[in-house]
Amino acid sequence: MSGTLFGLGVGPGDPELITLKAVRILQSSPVIAYPAPDTGDSMARAIAAPHIPDGRQEIIIRTPMIAGKFPANDVYDHYAKDISGHLDEGRDVAVLCEGDPFLFGSFMYIFERLSDRFPIEVVPGVSSIGACAAAAGAPLVSRNQVLSIVPAPLAEKDLEARIAVADAVAIMKVGRHLEKVRRVIDRLGLTEAAQYVERATLPNQKVSALAQLNDASAPYFSMILIRKPEQDPL
Amino acid sequence: MSGTLFGLGVGPGDPELITLKAVRILQSSPVIAYPAPDTGDSMARAIAAPHIPDGRQEIIIRTPMIAGKFPANDVYDHYAKDISGHLDEGRDVAVLCEGDPFLFGSFMYIFERLSDRFPIEVVPGVSSIGACAAAAGAPLVSRNQVLSIVPAPLAEKDLEARIAVADAVAIMKVGRHLEKVRRVIDRLGLTEAAQYVERATLPNQKVSALAQLNDASAPYFSMILIRKPEQDPL
Repeated sequence: MSGTLFGLGVGPGDPELITLKAVRILQSSPVIAYPAPDTGDSMARAIAAPHIPDGRQEIIIRTPMIAGKFPANDVYDHYAKDISGHLDEGRDVAVLCEGDPFLFGSFMYIFERLSDRFPIEVVPGVSSIGACAAAAGAPLVSRNQVLSIVPAPLAEKDLEARIAVADAVAIMKVGRHLEKVRRVIDRLGLTEAAQYVERATLPNQKVSALAQLNDASAPYFSMILIRKPEQDPL
Repeated sequence: MSGTLFGLGVGPGDPELITLKAVRILQSSPVIAYPAPDTGDSMARAIAAPHIPDGRQEIIIRTPMIAGKFPANDVYDHYAKDISGHLDEGRDVAVLCEGDPFLFGSFMYIFERLSDRFPIEVVPGVSSIGACAAAAGAPLVSRNQVLSIVPAPLAEKDLEARIAVADAVAIMKVGRHLEKVRRVIDRLGLTEAAQYVERATLPNQKVSALAQLNDASAPYFSMILIRKPEQDPL
């Protein structure tokens, strides 16, 4: 009997925004894996830390972050092999994922390598989109509006086309793309409708109207929310 | 000192997919309000039930559902007044909301009536979008793809235009719009890429490839997910 691979959404950052289900699985999984930058701490591990019992085997999935590039395949091949060794021997493995595993989550890299070989259960988590809207203090989208979630690394003209056609927009992974995103929003006449949110739900959370933000760059965990003036409700 | 108004996301349906923070606030709030249909039980109340202590004052926000219409303003005016009475007297009120309060959540109707008068805290919850993707067993969106969340009640031509421009789509509130949505997806040549999910995370959850679904209509809590063939990663 092989073990089960769990993809655990641990939420946007506040350790209290983890679900009861994720806590239960954390407490019963003998092996816990989580992404971390090349050097430094894992945010997913920090979120889950209060619920990880002592003595669990831990796999740190270290993914070199090279600007503009996604991690090389062989990095994930290596960790998928490591994880499959435990599953083959009957041990469950919980892979932590910030936010929600299947909404832009890093878990997909492990999932696509192991999903045809082992039983998998994905536990959805609170995504950063709802968390940023809560931090910004206003509903992002309502009634019959269309919400588009747009990654900031897109080329400038693509970014503009995508933002132009949505009623409400969450622009993710702003980071070093801040100036490009700001130009696009400005050209579309949407600066007054845009809110900037950085590190939502963490103690150092920052919220600002985009028009008042003077920073030239932003951390990776930052988002810009745009709520266009609402159409009449149906 | 007035009370605090909490907007509590309780997640998509499985009571275990509530957050620790929502549980803590439920246990300390003397007044709990939740939406319910004109007749019948409240899904939000059912999700939160294991965590509501005995003897709490409860406000049932009964909203007549008239096909194609949002609730009349005076319905929410009435309940907002009821809730504000408790807040004025210093009692915290927790308003439950399925999924996430600021992502298409019903909490916005109370929020927009009381946000300038009382302290408000919104607790994000697991949205049905990540829950449906988990149920369907595949990542919905990844890397630099654009995800659009499109309400099925939109007019057929609008629905088609919105789906055409996204990389991945979650079509919400399918319900009685199933046949219209199916026609649009078919015209766009996307039927083979579409999954249908009904009542995600509940015991009577149903998942089906859209091409295999023979039903002519669907319940309100249903979604169609479309993941278009992936572009090359950056």
